[in-house]
Amino acid sequence: MRTPLITLLTDFGTKDHYVASMKGVILSINPQCTLIDITHQVSPHDIQEGAYLLANSYSYFPKGTIHLSVVDPGVGGIRKPILLVTPHHFFVGPDNGLFTLVAQREKVIKVIVLTEQNFFLSKVSTTFHGRDIFAPVAAHLSLGIKPQVFGYEIDLVKKLGFETSVVKEGKLLGKIVHIDTFGNLVSNIDEKIFLRFTKGHPSMIWVGKRKIHGLGKGYWEGKSGEPIALFGSSGFLEISIKEENAQKILKTRRGDRVIVSVISDQ
Amino acid sequence: MRTPLITLLTDFGTKDHYVASMKGVILSINPQCTLIDITHQVSPHDIQEGAYLLANSYSYFPKGTIHLSVVDPGVGGIRKPILLVTPHHFFVGPDNGLFTLVAQREKVIKVIVLTEQNFFLSKVSTTFHGRDIFAPVAAHLSLGIKPQVFGYEIDLVKKLGFETSVVKEGKLLGKIVHIDTFGNLVSNIDEKIFLRFTKGHPSMIWVGKRKIHGLGKGYWEGKSGEPIALFGSSGFLEISIKEENAQKILKTRRGDRVIVSVISDQ
Amino acid sequence: MRTPLITLLTDFGTKDHYVASMKGVILSINPQCTLIDITHQVSPHDIQEGAYLLANSYSYFPKGTIHLSVVDPGVGGIRKPILLVTPHHFFVGPDNGLFTLVAQREKVIKVIVLTEQNFFLSKVSTTFHGRDIFAPVAAHLSLGIKPQVFGYEIDLVKKLGFETSVVKEGKLLGKIVHIDTFGNLVSNIDEKIFLRFTKGHPSMIWVGKRKIHGLGKGYWEGKSGEPIALFGSSGFLEISIKEENAQKILKTRRGDRVIVSVISDQ
Repeated sequence: MRTPLITLLTDFGTKDHYVASMKGVILSINPQCTLIDITHQVSPHDIQEGAYLLANSYSYFPKGTIHLSVVDPGVGGIRKPILLVTPHHFFVGPDNGLFTLVAQREKVIKVIVLTEQNFFLSKVSTTFHGRDIFAPVAAHLSLGIKPQVFGYEIDLVKKLGFETSVVKEGKLLGKIVHIDTFGNLVSNIDEKIFLRFTKGHPSMIWVGKRKIHGLGKGYWEGKSGEPIALFGSSGFLEISIKEENAQKILKTRRGDRVIVSVISDQ
Repeated sequence: MRTPLITLLTDFGTKDHYVASMKGVILSINPQCTLIDITHQVSPHDIQEGAYLLANSYSYFPKGTIHLSVVDPGVGGIRKPILLVTPHHFFVGPDNGLFTLVAQREKVIKVIVLTEQNFFLSKVSTTFHGRDIFAPVAAHLSLGIKPQVFGYEIDLVKKLGFETSVVKEGKLLGKIVHIDTFGNLVSNIDEKIFLRFTKGHPSMIWVGKRKIHGLGKGYWEGKSGEPIALFGSSGFLEISIKEENAQKILKTRRGDRVIVSVISDQ
Repeated sequence: MRTPLITLLTDFGTKDHYVASMKGVILSINPQCTLIDITHQVSPHDIQEGAYLLANSYSYFPKGTIHLSVVDPGVGGIRKPILLVTPHHFFVGPDNGLFTLVAQREKVIKVIVLTEQNFFLSKVSTTFHGRDIFAPVAAHLSLGIKPQVFGYEIDLVKKLGFETSVVKEGKLLGKIVHIDTFGNLVSNIDEKIFLRFTKGHPSMIWVGKRKIHGLGKGYWEGKSGEPIALFGSSGFLEISIKEENAQKILKTRRGDRVIVSVISDQ
């Protein structure tokens, strides 16, 4: 018999009482739940960042995990509250693009619009569906209630555009899509695409005006203050500076260009 | 058989080892406890803020939950360590006003001054009663030890003044009492008091020099950069700006005035 | 039957998906684990600070606790991944000095270099051994697998120098080794060494150009804005200012000198 597991990802921060209220609601309905925070520090209202952080963590959790994800600037408006079912996981949250990457990577078995008010708190605010709708639905789901009982089925979830890298005029063009705690610059250039492009030839990588020769293998490589490029733990090209914050030193921002070119042999 | 549940609220931050030490102490006494953080980012020494965050979250937790709350600038001094019992919950912490709002909202069944050293760590420091007194008392309480065994009973807990809104010269005067992660400005103007004051007439709301006409229903309303007023998830009047940080844009501080006036019909 | 308990200490921050990925890996292997965060806000790459925070918290956890500790700037390089066994606890992480203080305070029963890949994730990155090696090893250990099964034994763990206080020309010389959330300045001057040095005579304590007379007992002592000295909850001499941030007021940094001298009786 497994312990039911619910993860939480929000942009609520950890200073306010918001996350705790959600956890209290869940444990009042199902005291046996294990609750794990993915993060509550998604930048406020930043659905794309929430989607990115969820996409990089959900698959490490056991089969049957319920992912409660709330980055919801449109709370109380027209976006739909949904439950998304994939072969291994459940996702509960607003249908505003937050599940874009999950729906791209996983087979979508079912999408349910949450309408059955018996599974909500008795008084639903217009400003905090995390506490009043999503948390109690996740908790009831963890008790074994079937997805279709929570509402009606729809075909698709809303998807936001996530730019992928492209080849143009002999160059592989990507972007910085995430900057982590260490200041590492994570691009949208996938290892497979990089290898298909370079075909084993030596490469040159540009971030802004900085040029990097070839690939490193670990953060410990490189000289002090010199950026290196490597494939990070999510399988994407990353720019890093040994024991320093590459973002601060290179003054890079999310969205900045990363360009890869092949060095010709002659 | 329920899992015992202990929440933690402190001003200890999450960088230091303080919170972990408390959790280690609890789990050494009762390894079956579920521990849930309310927040550890109460502003240092800010008892009022701690009281506010506790008051907005405790009631969402199941019956029998033990709330371990430590904002304790007077640790080791004359303030008393107490256990407060209400019909549904237990509260353990310093008697310095931290439980003011709880004691106003709930029937106080019992207040016990913690004197029974058998339930403390064997060496009690003068600077960290969270670890040495409050955590082990909460843990023993979670094992089912009766409240009166921990010390002697007193009648009252210490209360701090929390200003409520007042009507003066035909205006409803309130204050900003909390600014949340999103920069939303939460006032002390309760929805019922607001409705009794406006009697259904259209209203005007002032925050500093900014004037807001009437009430919105959700954060998604309003034009870019324009503040709106609405009732937030705790039932109090709140000022917000769509997908932006109202605090930064309006340069408001905790304690600033909020004024409501009724627009006459003629 | 005890619940297995794993603590986590890293420099990964709480914004990224890194910590959650580790937790997902652990719960996929052993869903019965209780996971407790010590901190994830060790300053990036700061092994000494990680060692300090671990040393101040591990001993409060129950016998059998597994401490998963990852401050690992050399990840993927030549430092060894290890499991350190002491009479009461297990420690899993990189052999880069992070366990210096633990190994000084506890009897080291066994040190195992982690080589047995059956206990790693099937694909091991060069950049995230926290998720790919340390988390799955900790999880398997929590299932009761014996330490020696994870690899081969070595004699010693790597130790970093942690300066202790010294007596020189009639003065006791120490340093600020940690500054906490409240701005309290924690030195490396141990209470026993202080008492042996002062022999009960009144003392004077210098931090930079500020002079403090004698010892206080609690943070609530002292006049507004005036620093006091006291022994903090870890047993070391600490400088504090009542309800204020001593670090900001005194502009002290980690590494700054603390000097104790005895006031002669005549």
